[in-house]
Amino acid sequence: MIEITSLQNGRIKNIVKLNNRRQRDQQQVTVVEGVREVMRALQQGIVPCEAYICPDLLDDEGQTAVAHLSSLPADTTQHFSVTPDIFAKIAYRGQSGGLLIVIPYLQNSLAKLDHPTFVAVIESVEKPGNLGAILRTADAAGVDAVIICGQGTDIHNPNAIRASLGAIFSVPVVQEETATVIDWLKKQAIQIVATTPDAQRPLTAVDYTIPTAIIMGSEAHGLSDNWLNAADQQVIIPMHGIVDSLNLSVSTALLLYEVVRQRMN
Amino acid sequence: MIEITSLQNGRIKNIVKLNNRRQRDQQQVTVVEGVREVMRALQQGIVPCEAYICPDLLDDEGQTAVAHLSSLPADTTQHFSVTPDIFAKIAYRGQSGGLLIVIPYLQNSLAKLDHPTFVAVIESVEKPGNLGAILRTADAAGVDAVIICGQGTDIHNPNAIRASLGAIFSVPVVQEETATVIDWLKKQAIQIVATTPDAQRPLTAVDYTIPTAIIMGSEAHGLSDNWLNAADQQVIIPMHGIVDSLNLSVSTALLLYEVVRQRMN
Repeated sequence: MIEITSLQNGRIKNIVKLNNRRQRDQQQVTVVEGVREVMRALQQGIVPCEAYICPDLLDDEGQTAVAHLSSLPADTTQHFSVTPDIFAKIAYRGQSGGLLIVIPYLQNSLAKLDHPTFVAVIESVEKPGNLGAILRTADAAGVDAVIICGQGTDIHNPNAIRASLGAIFSVPVVQEETATVIDWLKKQAIQIVATTPDAQRPLTAVDYTIPTAIIMGSEAHGLSDNWLNAADQQVIIPMHGIVDSLNLSVSTALLLYEVVRQRMN
Repeated sequence: MIEITSLQNGRIKNIVKLNNRRQRDQQQVTVVEGVREVMRALQQGIVPCEAYICPDLLDDEGQTAVAHLSSLPADTTQHFSVTPDIFAKIAYRGQSGGLLIVIPYLQNSLAKLDHPTFVAVIESVEKPGNLGAILRTADAAGVDAVIICGQGTDIHNPNAIRASLGAIFSVPVVQEETATVIDWLKKQAIQIVATTPDAQRPLTAVDYTIPTAIIMGSEAHGLSDNWLNAADQQVIIPMHGIVDSLNLSVSTALLLYEVVRQRMN
């Protein structure tokens, strides 16, 4: 294991740069920090390009993860040992437990999805924390794929990966243009259910036992006309109070679990 | 309107102190910032003790709120004009739009609740953002009361108030000891439904058309034995993935909206 002791080390500087999306897109890699998140990536067969370990910060769970990392072939994953001050510089969030890996971009695509019957589409999500929470719920609800389209947070945002608690590695996540996604859903004969405060029909008044895509809009702007026009059904979450919107990850969960409920019966 | 121009002003220093729970409890007041949140407090009849206005930061909506504040009797609400640097010091979060009020503690109690049939109980919630999101969902779901018990975030935490988008003023929120709440629910003949990952019964397999209290535990530790033992029903949110828990505000929303769904039919 190579020791890095200087904050000026080029690799260290590069990890800080990966906080920027343009840098990630150029290099086609992103950062996963946190022992639990790293373990989940490894369990799903992700092979890191680089692993950064701060021995002073590792707990027992961290040691287990490092052992797992050490079993990977040295020609695929380079290992580096860093000091606590260097680790503090590369960890975007606190409590990462002394472990951070650099992984290649996930290579999912619509073409790779095998006859999905339960899809969540998120358009232009703004907050990485919301995207992460949605992935966590999508994993729990057993969706076949999450599709991200429009502007906003990208699926390789390190804070979204972190907030997903590693669910990004268990749920196939695809980033694709809106028009392409609509075409694909139509060809797959998947019903398109768009959630909007302008709908009349409550979310529970639709049959979700057929192949279904749930479409959620951005926190501030809701869904684009492209999605509203393409929708087979428009539904609303009934709201009885003074507040005019729910948190996006909450709204998404209500839709996804209504599908779960109907399919359990 | 009194102008405050010094960062050393005693009132300014005191607002910073109110970030601390002990100070709030001693003074029995808390802070509401943000134009929308202040408007919702006023609309629900809250009378602020003090209002801090930064004219340089007000937009049109802010002007409307200030006009509303100005119509309150001067002997109940003191008005202060502050400079942007002073406002930056007293606003805990960004984007407050130049408006902040100090309000007396809310005076809700179990005794004041009038035959509630839909109650949410949250035990030892840790994150103010989660408590705020739960209040927002509780408002939308039309619950009769939210009851907070155990350790953790208190209902007057300014960040929880802020994250609730003002829902804390529309939903009766009561803070009370666990044992007292359990006694009260039993006396009111309200069914106690505890959510726990150790249950067998899915959340949808309970009749929520009778008077119901939904009990949710803390993010890290779940529900205490007091609640598990008191429960008439224990339910689980079915989870099909690798992640072992949902965000607390997401879990709470799933329970509250299952009650809504059953009562719509």
